[in-house]
Amino acid sequence: MRIILASASPRRKELLAQVGLVFEVQVSDVEEKVSTTIPYYLVQGLSRQKAEAVFHALAGTGEEILVIGADTVVSCDGRILGKPENSEHAKEMLRLLQGRSHEVYTGVTLLHRASEAENTSSIEGKSFYETTKVNFYPMSEAEIDDYVATGDPLDKAGAYGIQGICARYISGIEGDYNNVVGLPVGRLYQEMKDWL
Amino acid sequence: MRIILASASPRRKELLAQVGLVFEVQVSDVEEKVSTTIPYYLVQGLSRQKAEAVFHALAGTGEEILVIGADTVVSCDGRILGKPENSEHAKEMLRLLQGRSHEVYTGVTLLHRASEAENTSSIEGKSFYETTKVNFYPMSEAEIDDYVATGDPLDKAGAYGIQGICARYISGIEGDYNNVVGLPVGRLYQEMKDWL
Repeated sequence: MRIILASASPRRKELLAQVGLVFEVQVSDVEEKVSTTIPYYLVQGLSRQKAEAVFHALAGTGEEILVIGADTVVSCDGRILGKPENSEHAKEMLRLLQGRSHEVYTGVTLLHRASEAENTSSIEGKSFYETTKVNFYPMSEAEIDDYVATGDPLDKAGAYGIQGICARYISGIEGDYNNVVGLPVGRLYQEMKDWL
Repeated sequence: MRIILASASPRRKELLAQVGLVFEVQVSDVEEKVSTTIPYYLVQGLSRQKAEAVFHALAGTGEEILVIGADTVVSCDGRILGKPENSEHAKEMLRLLQGRSHEVYTGVTLLHRASEAENTSSIEGKSFYETTKVNFYPMSEAEIDDYVATGDPLDKAGAYGIQGICARYISGIEGDYNNVVGLPVGRLYQEMKDWL
């Protein structure tokens, strides 16, 4: 079976490799369109769009495939934070997050197609999500400035990477750590292991 | 100021580098002697012994130094698990841990000496610990065998590494993730930043 990760994120790629899976990366341009602002609907919806775009691009290849889509957002005070647009935007996000807790949501969609030669109609899909609560220590303005100057926040939802230097400012979490990095590989492995 | 990590663990070294600190590693042979079986006393006591051995070895060098000692154990059902002695021992530990939750304790000791030229009596020390609760998915005997066969469990307290392939079997945690890896770098950074 070919396993295809429908995400360009180097962090998701690392996590999937960490749990011992052999896979390819394939990304389709998807116009991300979701009307909801409820975090767990949003991330599942976006993960499904990403997975479906790649799944359809593989139609007619006749092989058994499993496509994995994922999307992550940060939620704080009813606000949903994606990736910051620039340094000033990143600082605003960090000012909101410092000294308190927030939630990280990652939605995952799995689309599985058995070998077309055997049974063309056997397509299964499922979506799920995981939430992790993250607690930040207080950060001073100087600490926020220094962290944003490293460039690390700019490509990350909520303007921080738990797996980098920002670990200085994180006191603890409740839930799956890898979910905060971008892919809940524990839950993902359990959900896909019947196909392996 | 010279920062010295009094631990040979490659994982602790990586974590300290992750939060942006420049440091050396120096290890002294310590006969680890602690009479308590209370996890948070045990890890703090052992972390202090490791830090003190290195600290004393640096007496008379006249520089400002900060020595960091650390020790980690797993606690489950009132049993304290260190590193397994062999594969069979590792399997026993994993049978105990699978399908439920347990606690990981890391104790840390910081010993700081201001420049001896300025003030020979200025030595400060503190010890603290962090606890993290870790939840495992159920593991079959075959999964335990396969995991032990990778060799990953053999040098780790509790016979698993959360940061490796074993992430497959972990559903979530409560507390600091890096504490489970072996060093609570968030708390550590906050505790030492006045000296930086």
